Amino acid sequence: MNANLFRSSLYVAALCGLYISIAMFVPAFVDLYYGNPDWRLFALSGSLVGGVSCATAMAMRGTPPVFTKRLGFVLVNLLWAVFSLAGAIPFYLSPLGLTFSQSLFESISAITTTGSTVISGLDTTAPGILMWRSLLCWLGGIGIVALGLFILPSLHIGGMSIFKLESSDTNDKPFAKLASFTRAFMAIYVALTLSCTIAYDLAGMSHFDALNHAMSTVATAGFSTHDASFAYFDNEQLLVIGTIFLAVCSLPFSVLILLSIKGRLDTLRDPQITVFLGYLAGMGTALGIYHHLRNGVPIDSALIHSFFNITSILSTGGFASDDYTLWGPFAVALALFATFMGGCSGSTAGGIKAYRFVILFNVVRAGLKRLIYPNAIYPVRYGRTPVDMEVQRGVFLFVTLFIFLWVIGTLGMTLIGYDLLTSSSAVVTALSNTGPGIGHLIGPVGNFSTISDPALNLLSLMMLLGRLEILTVMVLLLPLFWRN
Amino acid sequence: MNANLFRSSLYVAALCGLYISIAMFVPAFVDLYYGNPDWRLFALSGSLVGGVSCATAMAMRGTPPVFTKRLGFVLVNLLWAVFSLAGAIPFYLSPLGLTFSQSLFESISAITTTGSTVISGLDTTAPGILMWRSLLCWLGGIGIVALGLFILPSLHIGGMSIFKLESSDTNDKPFAKLASFTRAFMAIYVALTLSCTIAYDLAGMSHFDALNHAMSTVATAGFSTHDASFAYFDNEQLLVIGTIFLAVCSLPFSVLILLSIKGRLDTLRDPQITVFLGYLAGMGTALGIYHHLRNGVPIDSALIHSFFNITSILSTGGFASDDYTLWGPFAVALALFATFMGGCSGSTAGGIKAYRFVILFNVVRAGLKRLIYPNAIYPVRYGRTPVDMEVQRGVFLFVTLFIFLWVIGTLGMTLIGYDLLTSSSAVVTALSNTGPGIGHLIGPVGNFSTISDPALNLLSLMMLLGRLEILTVMVLLLPLFWRN
Repeated sequence: MNANLFRSSLYVAALCGLYISIAMFVPAFVDLYYGNPDWRLFALSGSLVGGVSCATAMAMRGTPPVFTKRLGFVLVNLLWAVFSLAGAIPFYLSPLGLTFSQSLFESISAITTTGSTVISGLDTTAPGILMWRSLLCWLGGIGIVALGLFILPSLHIGGMSIFKLESSDTNDKPFAKLASFTRAFMAIYVALTLSCTIAYDLAGMSHFDALNHAMSTVATAGFSTHDASFAYFDNEQLLVIGTIFLAVCSLPFSVLILLSIKGRLDTLRDPQITVFLGYLAGMGTALGIYHHLRNGVPIDSALIHSFFNITSILSTGGFASDDYTLWGPFAVALALFATFMGGCSGSTAGGIKAYRFVILFNVVRAGLKRLIYPNAIYPVRYGRTPVDMEVQRGVFLFVTLFIFLWVIGTLGMTLIGYDLLTSSSAVVTALSNTGPGIGHLIGPVGNFSTISDPALNLLSLMMLLGRLEILTVMVLLLPLFWRN
Repeated sequence: MNANLFRSSLYVAALCGLYISIAMFVPAFVDLYYGNPDWRLFALSGSLVGGVSCATAMAMRGTPPVFTKRLGFVLVNLLWAVFSLAGAIPFYLSPLGLTFSQSLFESISAITTTGSTVISGLDTTAPGILMWRSLLCWLGGIGIVALGLFILPSLHIGGMSIFKLESSDTNDKPFAKLASFTRAFMAIYVALTLSCTIAYDLAGMSHFDALNHAMSTVATAGFSTHDASFAYFDNEQLLVIGTIFLAVCSLPFSVLILLSIKGRLDTLRDPQITVFLGYLAGMGTALGIYHHLRNGVPIDSALIHSFFNITSILSTGGFASDDYTLWGPFAVALALFATFMGGCSGSTAGGIKAYRFVILFNVVRAGLKRLIYPNAIYPVRYGRTPVDMEVQRGVFLFVTLFIFLWVIGTLGMTLIGYDLLTSSSAVVTALSNTGPGIGHLIGPVGNFSTISDPALNLLSLMMLLGRLEILTVMVLLLPLFWRN
């Protein structure tokens, strides 16, 4: 049985590799267009990955297996591993001189839509490489939304089963069919990318910058084509546009679809949206006022920068318009804690996510009440939906493991030799797929180019763990999983 | 009904005040013995507190109320408030020139057995004041063990009901009677204090130092009579003695009693003991080897210092033999995370505590297994005891609120103006009643004398919250609590 499981997993992984090989011709054309000789490395990578994928697919053909949860877990892990490895090839072959660990880190950072980069000197990096990063994170974004909307809820990961689209709730019937939903999602995703490109373009970015930043914005990744990120443009209009698109792309895509296609305003009543926008507004305002009072920055400018950077962290986008860690200790603390929080489920945002905070809050409230009246029943709800024990357990399981991995990862980074603040912020920014950390190395104006290979490998693992909602990976470590 | 509740609470609080006023005559005699004029301030404080307590007790006399959970919650909070305020009076009246916030902080730090101090220049501080600090934390230790063994389990706080002594388990019957248990506990507590005093004395401390450090060790508080704490003595024998007594006093006193009075070795099989000693041994060894390899300290000395300081943190004692934050970033990270962990329930140690880690681990393992076989039943156990949902919920409630308070407190401290590391370590060291933080101000060789009053007030609140296992205080904030 395990043999068939592996065969069919490899078959699907090979199909995925085939898609990636096709994608590699996009940066090849970009380099050709700009007259850059790098097009050859993309053509080479594409042919290589395509060839291996074809051969594997041929070898592994066979009767499709019955879809089981076990196959689901293996597939999800394998697909992301293949995606990561294949994505790294052009970086490794490029004239940037990256080590294998660096290339893999850049690739994983892209497809997990983290947006941390090991490339220093982006302003003079070849357009093909820049486009490959943007394309990888844009494609990664699609994978993540698919994962969050269709796969993880069925695998009962981290309390996500409350978002099962196959629910008997007739309101959600429009999504019952995967194909029609996929079409609608792709339409919205492309439409958001195009409108963001146009907006950035009109506000002053070059066409190339606008497209790359838009792809990276919609995927809430945070890759820029300039080392200074948004600070390079020194344009507050761009910050407002970025804030809006980042916030919108942190909302559940199921809601965005119902809203834009069916005009269903009521879908905005999802508690995770209220809570996400609530803490975004609260933290953005608090940080803006703090920046204004402490550093004497005019209030409008302080608020624009504060909202851009806070939205960037909470959406797990990770752009920066300024080194907000210099605004004062409250800004540093807020940035660190915000990195844990994240956006909504069913979007490209990572982190602990707003719906888990809703459930945690309601569980805590019910628990406190139960201390007074132990025999009374205080049901936990998510909006109007009762939250069963399975979901509550899932949420606690996820949060506990998130914090556990953060602690273990931080200890690992300090053993490698980085200070506590760099270590702890690097691990949480990787786990929540955000991007920037804290400290002069990896802070909002820094990057990961000076981070050693062992540390990058650790962080790559953390990015994958975070992206796959931890449990999807951890479950493979149980001996029980591999028993028949 | 609320009126009767307040009346009887105040009556009990007044009785408590009476005991404190009597205790104040101990440092008065110490100062008299050493010929220090401070004896007058203790005599004054004692008379003042005694008088007010007597008057209150007279005024609030009446029929004793039925003991309800609600009365339990109010009483616990009120007793600690009275204890804190009364304990602060001698500090405020003393010639040390402390502000009211500083005096209250010192008193709360003592009675919660935290051991952070605002007094700089301990080496020349009057013996009465030093004895008052030691006595407060020694008495606080008694209160905490009583709280942890008798009161909090009945209030179902933070999953502590698994330690309910009134359990039907016949093995625990020896404790069924409060009076006999109290006698046994006091005998052990005094015996530990005396043997620790003698051990310190023989190893080279002065009689006065030995007694003060022993009181502070047995209560896992961490007050020293020297600014440099154990580093002052430069004596590795003292470190070994301290390590052993701190570790023993982090074990549940119920176990210590059964062990020493009934010779019941089997009681050591409590999973929290295994886990606590396990992580203590693991972290002590890891840090010792790190210190040896990184700083070239001889391995025996490195291990002695490592074990002393790690035990000091995990027992929430908080002595220091060296500035371990200079040993390297791994030492800083380990110290910070260890501050969250704590010792065993039923001891004077604070923090999240070992039994909660046992339950968290088992819940996580069961949860992961359930992801593979959702319909299988994976019971969560604590040793051989099944852990019901109420206990699991209690543990999660506590850990969630612990982390929440840490985040809120840290943000508060950064708003006051302290850097992230100082702020976050100050809040966790207060919440877990440990003592030292990280950074040049409040690190192992620093103290809280330069911390501003608003920050001290915040930290005082955190110490009380942590000591009362958070939920005991938070429950008072619910409107439901005050409704009839």
